[in-house]
Amino acid sequence: MFAPPSALRAQDTVQLVAPAGPFDRASFDRGLEVLSSRYRPRFDDGIFSRSRYLAGDDDRRLAELTSAWRNDEVRALFAARGGYGVMRLLARLDVEALPHKPIVGFSDLTALHLALQAKGRISIHAPVVTQLGRSSPEVVQRLFDLLERDVVAPPLTATETFVGGRAEGPLIGGNLSVLTRLIGTPYLPDLTGAILLLEDVTERPYRLDRMWTHLRLAGVFEKVRGIALGEFTHCEEKGEAWGPLDVLRDLAREVNLPCASGFPIGHGEVNCAVPLGVRVRLDADARTLEFLEPAVRR
Amino acid sequence: MFAPPSALRAQDTVQLVAPAGPFDRASFDRGLEVLSSRYRPRFDDGIFSRSRYLAGDDDRRLAELTSAWRNDEVRALFAARGGYGVMRLLARLDVEALPHKPIVGFSDLTALHLALQAKGRISIHAPVVTQLGRSSPEVVQRLFDLLERDVVAPPLTATETFVGGRAEGPLIGGNLSVLTRLIGTPYLPDLTGAILLLEDVTERPYRLDRMWTHLRLAGVFEKVRGIALGEFTHCEEKGEAWGPLDVLRDLAREVNLPCASGFPIGHGEVNCAVPLGVRVRLDADARTLEFLEPAVRR
Repeated sequence: MFAPPSALRAQDTVQLVAPAGPFDRASFDRGLEVLSSRYRPRFDDGIFSRSRYLAGDDDRRLAELTSAWRNDEVRALFAARGGYGVMRLLARLDVEALPHKPIVGFSDLTALHLALQAKGRISIHAPVVTQLGRSSPEVVQRLFDLLERDVVAPPLTATETFVGGRAEGPLIGGNLSVLTRLIGTPYLPDLTGAILLLEDVTERPYRLDRMWTHLRLAGVFEKVRGIALGEFTHCEEKGEAWGPLDVLRDLAREVNLPCASGFPIGHGEVNCAVPLGVRVRLDADARTLEFLEPAVRR
Repeated sequence: MFAPPSALRAQDTVQLVAPAGPFDRASFDRGLEVLSSRYRPRFDDGIFSRSRYLAGDDDRRLAELTSAWRNDEVRALFAARGGYGVMRLLARLDVEALPHKPIVGFSDLTALHLALQAKGRISIHAPVVTQLGRSSPEVVQRLFDLLERDVVAPPLTATETFVGGRAEGPLIGGNLSVLTRLIGTPYLPDLTGAILLLEDVTERPYRLDRMWTHLRLAGVFEKVRGIALGEFTHCEEKGEAWGPLDVLRDLAREVNLPCASGFPIGHGEVNCAVPLGVRVRLDADARTLEFLEPAVRR
């Protein structure tokens, strides 16, 4: 059982943070406008810092994250962008000592989500701020509903059955690259009984195979009960007739667990919010993912 | 103590194998010519197979590798090319049941080297066949000497001290991408007391950081005594004044272990053969790596 954070309400103060990579200001402003339509978003000026591929050095990003997290006025944290950088902070972040509030983001934020699930907390896999501004009203509404209502989220539908079958368990995962970079560290939660969520962007097929094989050699597929694959965006191999889905289909069949592909989750046009840690029912034959618990508690 | 394989002799039969990716035939032929100048190389026709990014399917590559390995006439195995694919075979490969003979290669072959070192065996980090044909006579001679003579290999010199200091231990490692893909699996040897060798190719700086941070979060830098960095080829970030060496220098200083960078090992012009598992002395101030044991026994 994973613990849900407290629900948000309209006009709550929320904070935008950048614990990973630097971002485009215009995309950030558009996402900020979307959040402003419902909440009172705030952010520190330091959020616009840039140190090579990071949104400022570790000290800045950690201080921004933890001070917002500790601030009782701030009811939820929204990540400005993924990229890379959360992993660098994990060893300095005592999540159990921080209050339980909704943490929203995906991609590189998978590292933070997993560290939270390792401590039994539910968190929110959803568009980052820079992606929110180009998300449809339906995607935005789904996120707001998920953050505010203590009812289960609407089910999602995939595009293809890779391996038939049904399974139930807590939904755990996110970005494949980031998740596999926590194998063998204290920040990967116990995956026993889980439904594994995976998505990725700009990873060549052989790299998807290598990451999947890492999971296999680490014994992950002996623990999880099913696999929900989101989008694998810009993962095509130039000039080849086969693509990432052909590779993933073969990999899924090798491990022979219920697996459906193409859930609208990830770096594609539509990134539907899903709570991580909540119990879900994957029906790979029907290509559905049902949520059995709410993401937040009132 | 790691056990050395038996030394090769001129005119010994050796076999070329492709347990990873497919390769260019002309480069293979040039490398074959180099090996023919000293040994009697053989190979199966199936070596030219191609299945997407693999040199034939797992069954083919595994059968080729193990039948050559078991064949008493074959005194050493040379990998045709790296790429990707060895990891896929590890769970089906019982290296302890196979005779101890020199295994030669690098890059993706790091997965096989590490599996061998996990079982206490020395193996040879050296050019793959497709790289041998464009290697200098000195690089080729170093490899032949290392395979045939039970004396220590000549020391190597790096180009920059990242963190000063000296350390001794068995040399373990190879390709950073491949090594980190074995974290949390049974195929990564115990790195306690080791001098860690790392090199890579076409990995963007943030990815080098992510892999290094994976090592850090997995506790590797609390175990190893020193770090010998080879070449990081084509790892530049386009349009940026900073590069991979700036990132690696900062990462090395964070972990604060003796570290020298730029040993002529890896995907650059000069890939000097080094035995993995042998005891070495790293002097990061002098930028030298001395070998304290021979690679083979007579």
